[in-house]
Amino acid sequence: MSLSPLIDQLIEALRVLPGVGPKSAQRMAFYLLERHRDGARNLSSILLSAVENIGHCQKCRTLTEDDLCSICANPGRDVSSICIVETPSDVMMIDKVTGYKGRYFVLMGHLSPLDGIGPDELGLDKLALRLNEGDIQELIIATNPTVEGEATAHYISEMGKKRDIRTTRLAHGIPLGGELEFVDGGTLSHAFSDRRDI
Amino acid sequence: MSLSPLIDQLIEALRVLPGVGPKSAQRMAFYLLERHRDGARNLSSILLSAVENIGHCQKCRTLTEDDLCSICANPGRDVSSICIVETPSDVMMIDKVTGYKGRYFVLMGHLSPLDGIGPDELGLDKLALRLNEGDIQELIIATNPTVEGEATAHYISEMGKKRDIRTTRLAHGIPLGGELEFVDGGTLSHAFSDRRDI
Repeated sequence: MSLSPLIDQLIEALRVLPGVGPKSAQRMAFYLLERHRDGARNLSSILLSAVENIGHCQKCRTLTEDDLCSICANPGRDVSSICIVETPSDVMMIDKVTGYKGRYFVLMGHLSPLDGIGPDELGLDKLALRLNEGDIQELIIATNPTVEGEATAHYISEMGKKRDIRTTRLAHGIPLGGELEFVDGGTLSHAFSDRRDI
Repeated sequence: MSLSPLIDQLIEALRVLPGVGPKSAQRMAFYLLERHRDGARNLSSILLSAVENIGHCQKCRTLTEDDLCSICANPGRDVSSICIVETPSDVMMIDKVTGYKGRYFVLMGHLSPLDGIGPDELGLDKLALRLNEGDIQELIIATNPTVEGEATAHYISEMGKKRDIRTTRLAHGIPLGGELEFVDGGTLSHAFSDRRDI
């Protein structure tokens, strides 16, 4: 049953959003049409402008509509360390909670040979050029703790070691607020062997 | 911390969608920019077209881009009964599951004097004209079982009775698959007094 072809198209188009199934898409479509046409018009125009104008930072590859992102363009940031992450949201998260003041490099993914994603697709040639400049003193690898993320971390750590740059990886261990009983074996084993003096 | 003004604007604009908070909006923005720019472009254009072109059916007030919605324009539907609902999604739901073959009338809300929503805002003057035409034999009232929905149902049932039209309301009772223990008192009391021979 359908009310009109255009409403069906709108519901279908909204399903492109992650986590939005047929039921939520229908709810969104009716909400926008019944109660928030201005918001919908605004969303339409910003969406188009974002898709047309947002590209990648020439230095760190994160998403930005300028040549350089706000972090790379900021002369106050420490240029002697680079933190390697998989996605732009990782940049936002780390910058928000850690107090890290260095630069980033965003892979926009991880090594995945079966999907045709090798070092070049992750911009590692670009990263190599930056490491060769000689002013980098620490390479912090913050890829995800997945199989692909670990493989990518290993590959990048070799790049750092070859150039005698200190290379670090985020610590594994028990999450704050977690209970030992519910922590998986691999994590607990990491936490135990990396135990620290108090 | 923000990556770029345009990304911030996109995240903010996505929050107009119901059920989307800052975290989901950020996830949606990055997903669209990183992996689905075609889908985003398509969503932008259909959203604009929907907001510009979709208005109300001249007969039943539901949302449609034509003068008449597909149900009102369908000569195969029974013109002798009208089902009154609050929203276009109620039309879709009832049409999908009940096998009802009559027409609808969509209030686009319910009586709410404090918010300035009276009979005219719900198009009840238009409904009165349709009832006066004389070919309506049943008025099925399917407003929500809320205080406002019940008040609206009462108001409309008076319109039907005044014209000697059979006026019905959807049955209250125990939902299928529910357990008596968890049914609220009002519903159980309704279900008990409306018990049926088997």
